[in-house]
Amino acid sequence: MAIINENFLKLQAGYLFPEIGRRRRAFQEQNPDAKIISLGIGDVTQPLAPAVIDAMQKAVEQMSRAETFKGYDDRGVGYEFLRKAVRENDFAPRGVDIAIDEIFISDGAKCDTGNMQEIFGLDNVVAVTDPVYPVYIDTNVMAGRTGAAKDGRYEGIVYLPCTAENNFVPALPEKKVDLIYLCFPNNPTGAVATKEQLEKWVAYARQHKAVILFDAAYEAFISDPQIPHSIYEIEGAKNVAIEFRSFSKTAGFTGVRCAFAVVPKQLKAYKKDGSAVDLNPIWARRHCTKFNGTSYISQAAAAATYTPQGKKQTRQTIDLYMANAKLIRQTLSQVGYKVYGGVNAPYIWLKTPENLSSWGFFDLLLNKAHVVGTPGAGFGAAGEGFFRLTAFGQPENVKEALKRIKAVS
Amino acid sequence: MAIINENFLKLQAGYLFPEIGRRRRAFQEQNPDAKIISLGIGDVTQPLAPAVIDAMQKAVEQMSRAETFKGYDDRGVGYEFLRKAVRENDFAPRGVDIAIDEIFISDGAKCDTGNMQEIFGLDNVVAVTDPVYPVYIDTNVMAGRTGAAKDGRYEGIVYLPCTAENNFVPALPEKKVDLIYLCFPNNPTGAVATKEQLEKWVAYARQHKAVILFDAAYEAFISDPQIPHSIYEIEGAKNVAIEFRSFSKTAGFTGVRCAFAVVPKQLKAYKKDGSAVDLNPIWARRHCTKFNGTSYISQAAAAATYTPQGKKQTRQTIDLYMANAKLIRQTLSQVGYKVYGGVNAPYIWLKTPENLSSWGFFDLLLNKAHVVGTPGAGFGAAGEGFFRLTAFGQPENVKEALKRIKAVS
Repeated sequence: MAIINENFLKLQAGYLFPEIGRRRRAFQEQNPDAKIISLGIGDVTQPLAPAVIDAMQKAVEQMSRAETFKGYDDRGVGYEFLRKAVRENDFAPRGVDIAIDEIFISDGAKCDTGNMQEIFGLDNVVAVTDPVYPVYIDTNVMAGRTGAAKDGRYEGIVYLPCTAENNFVPALPEKKVDLIYLCFPNNPTGAVATKEQLEKWVAYARQHKAVILFDAAYEAFISDPQIPHSIYEIEGAKNVAIEFRSFSKTAGFTGVRCAFAVVPKQLKAYKKDGSAVDLNPIWARRHCTKFNGTSYISQAAAAATYTPQGKKQTRQTIDLYMANAKLIRQTLSQVGYKVYGGVNAPYIWLKTPENLSSWGFFDLLLNKAHVVGTPGAGFGAAGEGFFRLTAFGQPENVKEALKRIKAVS
Repeated sequence: MAIINENFLKLQAGYLFPEIGRRRRAFQEQNPDAKIISLGIGDVTQPLAPAVIDAMQKAVEQMSRAETFKGYDDRGVGYEFLRKAVRENDFAPRGVDIAIDEIFISDGAKCDTGNMQEIFGLDNVVAVTDPVYPVYIDTNVMAGRTGAAKDGRYEGIVYLPCTAENNFVPALPEKKVDLIYLCFPNNPTGAVATKEQLEKWVAYARQHKAVILFDAAYEAFISDPQIPHSIYEIEGAKNVAIEFRSFSKTAGFTGVRCAFAVVPKQLKAYKKDGSAVDLNPIWARRHCTKFNGTSYISQAAAAATYTPQGKKQTRQTIDLYMANAKLIRQTLSQVGYKVYGGVNAPYIWLKTPENLSSWGFFDLLLNKAHVVGTPGAGFGAAGEGFFRLTAFGQPENVKEALKRIKAVS
């Protein structure tokens, strides 16, 4: 008799974004004329940079001739041309030395952040911030690292509350933890961590032989020169941290699919007997066994974002989104909302008015303003009473959405 | 202290294909002038069909304009245009009714066949054929469904030997099993299963409430009209089987990345208390949580394989590969090799000469003929003494490789 993985049955409700999609579709069906504007799911709207389009067209053309056709990318870890570009553009200029065999190209940071837990034992105590990107938690629930859910929190997970009081950067855990998911610039709160704050986390991880899973998918949106883009800018972090990056938001690749994870060679985890094991070859084995590489066309596209033209053009799009962010912050502040984030991150985190619940405010905005946002409660118990707006809309839609929100505020 | 998943430490040697790559590179470094021909890794060599190239160029162009730009594909399950094409072209003409929400588009059958085991509990007894595509086993080792390896076999796995005596279609297991991996047309042996043989497996699964994980990645290579292309051609199979398909070999997508899994709504697994749970929503949850969709360009490419031009052109390439297969079979038979497969599958499975070991024959071919094949022992203990050649080479390379093999035989 085939037995199901009963851990899946512990999962609460639907995954957040499908649920938002469901409510949106239901509303649209009943109000076919409503022109809904989404500042919700965090999907980008601007077309790809011309340099990226050119590179993809060239890559497609290569696939049409036997002499230049590309099949499997060797072991599925990514073409060297892309891993070199990552090394030389994302890390070297910030004083971080990453070897190309520490870089694993993938088709998305969701996959990487979801899959990385597999190489760790089930007994590890997992810490997440609250609110949090749900993938970190749900994938640990599926694996069996938690008990049942109670009041929106899973037994066994250590939740680190991020509140207005701590500027949405959590304090170190009181209980000893083994795996720590951190995301800065943060999704959903838009908060960033300073060098000093990250130093505390790295010191904690070194002291307790913990591993930090550092999601830096939004690093390109940092404007403050003092804020680290990579956790490896912190001395000693390569001994204790895995970093995740993505082209999805940086270069509009949500429909193209390309990302990467960095697993340093110094990084260790431990057998139950206390002996150390290198994680880089373990992840390499996992990656090569369960993944067959990222589309060549997507990798060629990603490499194009590092050319002078590609950098300039993707920067222009980021600037456009950050102008949206500024407008959202300013407009909503003016009408009395308490607003966070949106300076070094494409997310604006706002307190719901009149103590409305997150989903209550979601339904209000959808029904009255035909604007879709993301309920903070979808990101965790501490997100209740908050709401996330993204800066990824078309500028004219963002303006229209703000006009409508003002009208119902 | 971060604890490693110690199951990874049970894995034997390197994953097969990286090991082949390593030996090949080492030989090439020492013999820089040798022109190595690979009939090994099973990668395709022919360029993409013109209809596919056209569709990709159009898709790339769409990504360059905001009005036609595509971001995330909703829940990551695949665009409806592709899932409809799959339903109407792969299944309906064979009398199989598959709903589009039973189809999950992915970036590769390796991912799907590797990931599917996650939705099942760790207590299931897993059966695999021997020889076997290593991914089925290695992913179960990583998950913890096996004990240690001994003489190339993992404790706890039920191995079903495929031998010349049973035409490489295994007998039903003597011990009761819960999850059964079957691959027809088979990689590596090139064997196919008849309708009657598959009926026996479906009956077994129904009787024992087992689930069959049916890998049909090579169905397009079937030439015998009596051989089923889908396990769902067997009455009752939708109650007990998941099917995997891929565009990798069918349409040369090894560098493009597109595949799909079918998880029927009737399909159940069971809680330990015996109550039934539908697997379709469980897989949907897994897919949406850990995967963010397949590249839009790759999906557009896949859809183009179902157009009249796309079908004709991909069929021409398959015919070219199968002409290679025929030539390999005939030539090697003539020089005295015992040869299997290569009629309904792109793989030729041959007995090594003079009782050479698989890796011994690999090294002989590499060193003497500068031809790379795949050692049968890499696919399991029962593969020892066998060797796999693929039909995916350039015709002129295949001819040259055969000439060289003849010369050293």
